[in-house]
Amino acid sequence: MQFKITTDLLDQIRDLIAQQDVSTLEQLLVDLHFADVAEIIDELNLEEAVFLVKLLDSEKTSEALMELDEDQRDRILNELSPKEIADELEEMNTDDAADILNDLPQEVAQEVINEIADEQHAEDIVDLLRYEENSAGGLMAKELVKVNENWTVISCVSEMRAQAENVTRVHSIYVVDNNDKLKGRLSLKDLLTSAETTPIKDVCKPKVDYVTVNTSGEEVARVMRKYDLEAIPVVDELDRLVGRVTIDDIVDFITEEAEKDYQLASGISQDVEANDSIWELTKARLPWLVLGLVGGIGAAAIMDGFEEDLQNNVVLYLFTPLIAAMAGNVGVQSSAIIVQGIANDDLRGSIGNRLIKEMLLAMLNGFILAILLLGFTLVTQDSYLTCIAISVSLFAVIIVAGLVGTFVPLALHKRGIDPAIATGPFITTSNDIFGILIYLLIAKAIMGI
Amino acid sequence: MQFKITTDLLDQIRDLIAQQDVSTLEQLLVDLHFADVAEIIDELNLEEAVFLVKLLDSEKTSEALMELDEDQRDRILNELSPKEIADELEEMNTDDAADILNDLPQEVAQEVINEIADEQHAEDIVDLLRYEENSAGGLMAKELVKVNENWTVISCVSEMRAQAENVTRVHSIYVVDNNDKLKGRLSLKDLLTSAETTPIKDVCKPKVDYVTVNTSGEEVARVMRKYDLEAIPVVDELDRLVGRVTIDDIVDFITEEAEKDYQLASGISQDVEANDSIWELTKARLPWLVLGLVGGIGAAAIMDGFEEDLQNNVVLYLFTPLIAAMAGNVGVQSSAIIVQGIANDDLRGSIGNRLIKEMLLAMLNGFILAILLLGFTLVTQDSYLTCIAISVSLFAVIIVAGLVGTFVPLALHKRGIDPAIATGPFITTSNDIFGILIYLLIAKAIMGI
Repeated sequence: MQFKITTDLLDQIRDLIAQQDVSTLEQLLVDLHFADVAEIIDELNLEEAVFLVKLLDSEKTSEALMELDEDQRDRILNELSPKEIADELEEMNTDDAADILNDLPQEVAQEVINEIADEQHAEDIVDLLRYEENSAGGLMAKELVKVNENWTVISCVSEMRAQAENVTRVHSIYVVDNNDKLKGRLSLKDLLTSAETTPIKDVCKPKVDYVTVNTSGEEVARVMRKYDLEAIPVVDELDRLVGRVTIDDIVDFITEEAEKDYQLASGISQDVEANDSIWELTKARLPWLVLGLVGGIGAAAIMDGFEEDLQNNVVLYLFTPLIAAMAGNVGVQSSAIIVQGIANDDLRGSIGNRLIKEMLLAMLNGFILAILLLGFTLVTQDSYLTCIAISVSLFAVIIVAGLVGTFVPLALHKRGIDPAIATGPFITTSNDIFGILIYLLIAKAIMGI
Repeated sequence: MQFKITTDLLDQIRDLIAQQDVSTLEQLLVDLHFADVAEIIDELNLEEAVFLVKLLDSEKTSEALMELDEDQRDRILNELSPKEIADELEEMNTDDAADILNDLPQEVAQEVINEIADEQHAEDIVDLLRYEENSAGGLMAKELVKVNENWTVISCVSEMRAQAENVTRVHSIYVVDNNDKLKGRLSLKDLLTSAETTPIKDVCKPKVDYVTVNTSGEEVARVMRKYDLEAIPVVDELDRLVGRVTIDDIVDFITEEAEKDYQLASGISQDVEANDSIWELTKARLPWLVLGLVGGIGAAAIMDGFEEDLQNNVVLYLFTPLIAAMAGNVGVQSSAIIVQGIANDDLRGSIGNRLIKEMLLAMLNGFILAILLLGFTLVTQDSYLTCIAISVSLFAVIIVAGLVGTFVPLALHKRGIDPAIATGPFITTSNDIFGILIYLLIAKAIMGI
């Protein structure tokens, strides 16, 4: 049953668009899920894509628009008039509409807002615009089903039916007081099994998990995961119910965050994908490479500074790539574990304790690796002293690299900076330089040169 | 309203356990969510944890058990008799119970199965054991609500009520034929608004997304994300409905996969966390470090092979860490983008096209970086030829590194191996060696030594 986009299907659609064969196209697409339509639109060129978007009824296109690749969506929206965009937004949930508006240039967004016919909908969308993207307010939708605690079951059921029309999935019915403050929640089952004149107050469950508009996206995701929630209500600073976050948005959020962290760890500084243009990929990749280049030049400068000392010990040069690589690897490992610990909120104990633990760990790893390296150098090099100098340096470098990798993300986190930026190239580069400096200093001291 | 575990609370609980003050403990914990109880148990020592598990009613402990840190759970289960474990499993959903059994030693698992009183439940759990963990069969639960297409609305409603008791969240009602084959789905709304004598066949929606027991976890996650599903039915090889996967399991799955990929990219070969023991962390970190050491030794051996050529050009040694680092960085970047493209299933076009694109990209980046390096070396070095040799080599190394980083994950994926293992240290290490070899060869050729 899985829909799979094929070249044949794409060719057929392209032909139909070229022939402006509207009725066959409509027939072909009417049964497709909007997510599949989005996949097709992603593959078309701009002109074809805009043709399809204008052709299909706005309920399907509005949903497909949300599933599109962001770049393609921006290009398509650019071709639509404010009135046409407004028509799409009318069909969308408030959270999706707000996301679209956030991506538009401000003056266009204003024109689009003016064109939205449904005033309540426009108001709800504008309300959402003021929240930060990465917060419960930025993730929530206004669509939900709420009832007043002072109503009875019977008045509640009819009111609820009307509200539910605009809400794709009900999940929970939220109970508020006269000031719109969240008081609890209600299951459909409770409602249907209670006598019609029962006050809602008597059937509502007063314990309800909620977040506030300013709760960070990560925290919302953590709470929803921990308690296996499919939706969570969001209250404002006055405890008034203002929206709810649903699990599908959180799934997208978790995936995007994970991709971002993975890319940062890999030295990619902007959200890109394999299909992006060479220019976009360069913008994302070059900054870290330049940093790496600066690090490499720094390492070369350090080695250059030891030139006189080392002219009779050229063998020490042979192991600089090894030292730099090991310093980088250890730093990346230790920072990755700290970054994940911070993300999962399960780091307890002080920074000092973390550093002591990492030092012990690095000593154990460093000792094993130094012995292995000693074994190799003893076989290939003549001077015992050189072999010992290289291995002792490796041991020291691994400990320092581990400590740097542990300390930097913890320190960044304490200052409110996302520690994920600390991993990957940043740690690697600084550890390269430190590593080579430590290596040459220790080797020099041991060999008495 | 957020529950926050405090030292005070933990101390109080520890004291109560020490005093065996059962009634105060029960009072304290009765109102807590099972996920919070799990957080508390995670912090206790084994003896205290087992005391608590045995004290609380089995519905709460069985759910808390699933939320525990895996190591702590294994230790606790080790202290329980097969009968006690069976009692916990009785309260669990089949998918959770099967996960627990999978973690137990085989002979213990067998004893536990024999102790499960509810035969149908035991049968369902055993059914699930045969599926691979990372498949729809391994992720699904047997609990669902299904009705026969030949029933009428009225018989369906009463049957459904009985089934729904065992199912935490209904999501959808699945419709099957006499052979249990999945025929469609039904919404609660449809059921309640149709005449009582209407055959189910006439109200059921025949289009329903489903997966088979052998569909990979990644694919299930992709489909559920794409279509914003909160549950998806799973059919066996004969199209018979055998279970369903719910979104909360997929959220956990996505998070775990992302953590695993992130760790692999960071050179951590086992699932560990910051709080694990030094020994466990060493087991996860040392393999990659040894690989890095071997790579570094390889690089040293290569440089040693060029010793005679370079005795008058020691300056070339200064840039080996730079070359190795740049080769590693470029390789990690390009492999990370490919690995994510594969994970998101949005790589189209042939391997050849990917390589051409990466080559163009690497040429652009390499050119910019080579010019920067040329600028630096011209200022610090006397010989023009040396400066040009170093920069041209960097250019070539970046192109090769980009191609290796692109090709390796694509080739692994084609052979059915998880490409995530290609990123991080593996690519870095091989690119280190390649990079230095290419660098020295090209520099030697240009400088005519």
